[in-house]
Amino acid sequence: MPIFINLKRELLPMYQRKIPMNYNCGLSIAMEVVGSKWKFCILDEISKGIKRPRDLANSVSGISKRVLQNQLRELEMHGIVEKTIYTEVPLRVEYHLTDSGISLLPLISAVEQWGLGFAQQLKTILIRGEG
Amino acid sequence: MPIFINLKRELLPMYQRKIPMNYNCGLSIAMEVVGSKWKFCILDEISKGIKRPRDLANSVSGISKRVLQNQLRELEMHGIVEKTIYTEVPLRVEYHLTDSGISLLPLISAVEQWGLGFAQQLKTILIRGEG
Repeated sequence: MPIFINLKRELLPMYQRKIPMNYNCGLSIAMEVVGSKWKFCILDEISKGIKRPRDLANSVSGISKRVLQNQLRELEMHGIVEKTIYTEVPLRVEYHLTDSGISLLPLISAVEQWGLGFAQQLKTILIRGEG
Repeated sequence: MPIFINLKRELLPMYQRKIPMNYNCGLSIAMEVVGSKWKFCILDEISKGIKRPRDLANSVSGISKRVLQNQLRELEMHGIVEKTIYTEVPLRVEYHLTDSGISLLPLISAVEQWGLGFAQQLKTILIRGEG
């Protein structure tokens, strides 16, 4: 039986902004919520059905468990993902996208397409760096 | 008189990857190149005509000079921006977008639009956090 828990209230005290958020600046808002190296990848994996933290740690190449945990916590706090805890032994934790998370998928797809188009250029740069 | 200098060769030795890049994964590539809290904002400002490091430091809210310098160095290394040094006293340094940088602008605009649509939700979350 799943228990839906909302940890947002507990998460919020950790969230101290040094600089007041400018709510008229869409980029600042978006970067506050998804501006990291990992969040788009994590959301992409969740959208493909990878829901459990351990599976996410395996499928998001190069992420540490601690960073994954922090990123998931932030995504949850911002209402981009939700966590469900199933009362099994051992406890099962799954993440899924909220409507806000789903609204990011077209962007993530566009960023992915751009990345594929940039692959050759990055390859050239990195190979030159190794040489 | 502008001097066009290409520092990529000098920059590359600092670029050591722990995990080999997967060139078939568009998101990994894109996040390698623009996956940070600041790069979209920096590119957006440059596209609006803010070209000098000092002006960028003022217009990108909350960024430190050191972080800005690192981000510009990475963007330059990846061929997203180019640096021009003008031999004036004092030396004038300006950044502009390369074609690859320009190709990111529609994405940046889409991310900005998403951010504006998310403003109210973020506001609610942050105000709850302060209360």
